[in-house]
Amino acid sequence: MIVVMKQGASQADIDHMTARVEELGLKAHVIVGTERTVIAAIGEKREAHKESLESGPSVAEVLPILAPYKIASREIKQETTVVVAGSLSVGGNRIGVIAGPCSVESEEQLMTTARAVKAAGATALRGGAFKPRTSPYSFQGMKEDGLKLLATAREETGLAIVTEVVAAEDVSLVARYADVLQIGARNMQNYRLLEAVGKTDRAVLLKRGPSATLDELLLAAEYILDGGNPNVMLCERGIRTFESHTRFTLPLATVIYLHGKTHLPIVVDPSHGTGHTYMVPQMAAASVAAGADGLILEVHPEPETALSDGYQSLTPDQFVETMELCRRVAGAMNREI
Amino acid sequence: MIVVMKQGASQADIDHMTARVEELGLKAHVIVGTERTVIAAIGEKREAHKESLESGPSVAEVLPILAPYKIASREIKQETTVVVAGSLSVGGNRIGVIAGPCSVESEEQLMTTARAVKAAGATALRGGAFKPRTSPYSFQGMKEDGLKLLATAREETGLAIVTEVVAAEDVSLVARYADVLQIGARNMQNYRLLEAVGKTDRAVLLKRGPSATLDELLLAAEYILDGGNPNVMLCERGIRTFESHTRFTLPLATVIYLHGKTHLPIVVDPSHGTGHTYMVPQMAAASVAAGADGLILEVHPEPETALSDGYQSLTPDQFVETMELCRRVAGAMNREI
Amino acid sequence: MIVVMKQGASQADIDHMTARVEELGLKAHVIVGTERTVIAAIGEKREAHKESLESGPSVAEVLPILAPYKIASREIKQETTVVVAGSLSVGGNRIGVIAGPCSVESEEQLMTTARAVKAAGATALRGGAFKPRTSPYSFQGMKEDGLKLLATAREETGLAIVTEVVAAEDVSLVARYADVLQIGARNMQNYRLLEAVGKTDRAVLLKRGPSATLDELLLAAEYILDGGNPNVMLCERGIRTFESHTRFTLPLATVIYLHGKTHLPIVVDPSHGTGHTYMVPQMAAASVAAGADGLILEVHPEPETALSDGYQSLTPDQFVETMELCRRVAGAMNREI
Amino acid sequence: MIVVMKQGASQADIDHMTARVEELGLKAHVIVGTERTVIAAIGEKREAHKESLESGPSVAEVLPILAPYKIASREIKQETTVVVAGSLSVGGNRIGVIAGPCSVESEEQLMTTARAVKAAGATALRGGAFKPRTSPYSFQGMKEDGLKLLATAREETGLAIVTEVVAAEDVSLVARYADVLQIGARNMQNYRLLEAVGKTDRAVLLKRGPSATLDELLLAAEYILDGGNPNVMLCERGIRTFESHTRFTLPLATVIYLHGKTHLPIVVDPSHGTGHTYMVPQMAAASVAAGADGLILEVHPEPETALSDGYQSLTPDQFVETMELCRRVAGAMNREI
Repeated sequence: MIVVMKQGASQADIDHMTARVEELGLKAHVIVGTERTVIAAIGEKREAHKESLESGPSVAEVLPILAPYKIASREIKQETTVVVAGSLSVGGNRIGVIAGPCSVESEEQLMTTARAVKAAGATALRGGAFKPRTSPYSFQGMKEDGLKLLATAREETGLAIVTEVVAAEDVSLVARYADVLQIGARNMQNYRLLEAVGKTDRAVLLKRGPSATLDELLLAAEYILDGGNPNVMLCERGIRTFESHTRFTLPLATVIYLHGKTHLPIVVDPSHGTGHTYMVPQMAAASVAAGADGLILEVHPEPETALSDGYQSLTPDQFVETMELCRRVAGAMNREI
Repeated sequence: MIVVMKQGASQADIDHMTARVEELGLKAHVIVGTERTVIAAIGEKREAHKESLESGPSVAEVLPILAPYKIASREIKQETTVVVAGSLSVGGNRIGVIAGPCSVESEEQLMTTARAVKAAGATALRGGAFKPRTSPYSFQGMKEDGLKLLATAREETGLAIVTEVVAAEDVSLVARYADVLQIGARNMQNYRLLEAVGKTDRAVLLKRGPSATLDELLLAAEYILDGGNPNVMLCERGIRTFESHTRFTLPLATVIYLHGKTHLPIVVDPSHGTGHTYMVPQMAAASVAAGADGLILEVHPEPETALSDGYQSLTPDQFVETMELCRRVAGAMNREI
Repeated sequence: MIVVMKQGASQADIDHMTARVEELGLKAHVIVGTERTVIAAIGEKREAHKESLESGPSVAEVLPILAPYKIASREIKQETTVVVAGSLSVGGNRIGVIAGPCSVESEEQLMTTARAVKAAGATALRGGAFKPRTSPYSFQGMKEDGLKLLATAREETGLAIVTEVVAAEDVSLVARYADVLQIGARNMQNYRLLEAVGKTDRAVLLKRGPSATLDELLLAAEYILDGGNPNVMLCERGIRTFESHTRFTLPLATVIYLHGKTHLPIVVDPSHGTGHTYMVPQMAAASVAAGADGLILEVHPEPETALSDGYQSLTPDQFVETMELCRRVAGAMNREI
Repeated sequence: MIVVMKQGASQADIDHMTARVEELGLKAHVIVGTERTVIAAIGEKREAHKESLESGPSVAEVLPILAPYKIASREIKQETTVVVAGSLSVGGNRIGVIAGPCSVESEEQLMTTARAVKAAGATALRGGAFKPRTSPYSFQGMKEDGLKLLATAREETGLAIVTEVVAAEDVSLVARYADVLQIGARNMQNYRLLEAVGKTDRAVLLKRGPSATLDELLLAAEYILDGGNPNVMLCERGIRTFESHTRFTLPLATVIYLHGKTHLPIVVDPSHGTGHTYMVPQMAAASVAAGADGLILEVHPEPETALSDGYQSLTPDQFVETMELCRRVAGAMNREI
């Protein structure tokens, strides 16, 4: 860490901060600049003391040098982690494709979709049984009945099941049916839930919260990794900005940045990231071009009557076209899909 | 709702959407404009069909007329709700002041703070026992031991206790000790938790998530209200924007907007809203001028050694000055503190 | 427009607003809903009266139905405009590529870059002679001497010249040398400048301001179009959000949205849109996948000594690789580059 | 500056960067940490070489220690600048109040407003003659005729005139009539215009752009100061965020931050900062509580028929009430109005 003192800080304040740095077990290195003095604190631990030093007298700011996460860091592990869960593999040369309805609504709806996405090349089936909904008056999901239908779909199609878990107390139930536990954007910082999935042997798809920084996302992953579960996929699904013509803003440079900082594979969600069906095919292709290791896409046999997210769901036919487009772009990037 | 058709929508599409509106139990009213046709859907329910109509053919957009929340709405209840919990009252002419450390760290730290804030006029004591922390390596709170210390502090000072609950399974434990259950910003859309506090008889302080819209905040409150608990205070604590000189951006116009839309009282948190001790006194005063019904402020006897949030905590002396400032501004606004 | 009255609006207020709508030359259509009354104003002109109606008594909000821009709208002109300026063509099947240094620094620097980007397939040369710089202490550009060097580069390479103009009084000077007048992000709403370039016969590259909505961007284009100049290219170069690991956030869904709303061609700037050289190749490829009609890229023979923007400039070798990548992705999208 | 090297940077890269730092005339101080090496560059000039160093091999990031602005900095000048222009004084204990219509529309409209705001205690009159409008189809202002009416209003009421100038070529014309030249938010980075007003002897009111950082705002001020004009007031008028219930988000902590960084006085604009008349009185009071040195408020005798900004204009009666409220809050803050 670099402790930057205010201009005109007294020698007493500089001495005080030097002592504080040493109390924290770090080596202090005082550099007297032409206008300001800075104290380099060497031996920085990631469980940083940044906050504590910031309260010191005449401190202008504290600049950390190390990232706050550890197990997730590519500095610790050079090669990209390949997460495998049944038919789904994410992190290798082949791009994983998770497709299916926002919510499980009925056996017919789910099976129709599962067959269609399987035929078009999806490698996993998504479907929500526990639905966190903004309004208490919206459809809240089929719960365990939905999970059973998902297991049926896996039995028939062989597709791995990706489904959301919304509370620590549901983890063992959902893990009985699912191959991948999805942590939704609203729960990215539900640490009790992160700890609970960290103790399972199921792969985890961790979605970025719409106002989370990437350090916060990586620290959320760190909770899971620190619990002993190494199979974490990160998912970019859009951030909240002033743009109103899309539901969220999908910042694809995130994929490139994260690939530099972490060995965890990166999935992109162009359905939530745009909120409009007509934007999904090209944004899926753009995600592949940006280097995504996986895609997660909403598909519904009849979007107009979907109980949730119809406005951003592809029909099975549109999904076929999207896959073709992504396959060509993946080829251009020397990857497969 | 107003269904806006695309320019050049065919009569078939218009007829289709008219039929869809009527299928949903609404009365369709077709208005042929000079350039576009719009369909007014009369009898709109709040459990809106907006999503479903948006997927229709040739629909450009669907504009809702009614707010999506109901019980929280001032259209339903004209007078402001006064939430009373022990010594704390929020929503009346007197402004409630909740003060105390970010985390409960020790008996001495807590009792020193409790006595100081009581003496300076605070009407409730805050202190975290269960701490949701961005990093798994940060101090995670004293848990039930912290709750016990809070109860001791109430016993001595008479101050109502405000403390955070982070998971549904902890609600009954925390409710045994606390007067007010705080839902933190990270958990604003943890619906399982909202439902759990909705079933208690404890008042709830619901903090806005840093990227939540005000409709989302009011719908989160609706989960609690719908569970049967009418004692909800909303808390503005800052949103995430491109500004980097403050930890969050504190948008005080929110207080005025919410007072127009809901009967629930509004608390402001200038400590998290700025992230810098030196900004807190004036932003607390500004919050009062904007019409806040309550303030929540971090106070620590020795911010430099605090285990969390020292950089935004007031010392007891600074709290005394802040209270004096706020008292004068409250007087200017014809309120008391 | 739809004028939404507040709940409980009096008949007098409804009558007043009905009269106001008719005073504005529109036909008022009153719809009494179950909870609220709305007034549809038919015959809406784009020079909308929205603002004026919003001040009316008991008006909750005014929802416009028509977009505020006209000449730029795809409703007016179905086929995409192809802007041609010398060797550059943007809007057709072939993607235009504008490449070159941020600033013109010397003859050697410019000629080296011009030859390199030409050889790699660029169809126009960029280079700033008038540089709007955040700090008055930064290099401000070579001015007319820079323009002369650009003209020399065109003479040798045949590449069309794209260069920024920062003030109305410079338009005729810059137009003497340039094929395309670039309006920078900071000047997107410099209306005097927009009017001035609207009166020239030079093509215009209009960059989006970092907090401009797309309606504001299209209205800025409308100033140019309304002045009589139909050759406008829009450029997405990133918006300001809370993300700090990129200089700006590049929202590629913008390309898809704009293609739906306007016939003007869309260029993407992944150099400014990311602010990091290492992100540029993949984000350029992603831009092509999202449907961009053109790319603008910063290239410098020796980024480390560049007088501006070195940290986001490609070397000539990196530009060659970026072009190869984009060419393959363009092929996947059935386009050429 | 602190140059942070990537983990695993080679000794050759470290030596290269050390040499680069010394080439730039700075003293390099290499600190070998446990995980990374950093190079402190001592003697940093504000015309920073940050950009250039960022392009070096194995450089992770470059952290500046000094602010990029100089003349605007409070480190250079301790006492707050008091800007005086005719009847207006901003920066002293008494808060300056600039009030009047968005646009000058007619003699009657202007004189009615001028008399009313003077009677209520305003110390300057605002009114736009050159109007930068988002749409080319909106009212563009009365131009010089408007300036003449403003001069007439000054003659009768004695109020100093604050009016916008939108282009460098208009500066001498506008300066003939105005006491204060306003640079609008859209022109905050119109450097040609900043240079032009920097050469006049008129005071300048510089509005923050809606996505400008505070460093960018201070650097814009630096252009004016560097031109020789010391009479600059900064104006916070709201930033663009995801909030949609206000036109902009008014971040009042800005006032406190700027008071720490610069000696220039700070004005707040609650009219643009909220975009809703009903929010203006309380946000004006909150601005005073946050420490604003001045307020700028839109007032119109008949907002419903205003040619611009009616929805955020106060009537004269509302202005009287706002002034009373602000006067009481100013008293609470030990200031006058």
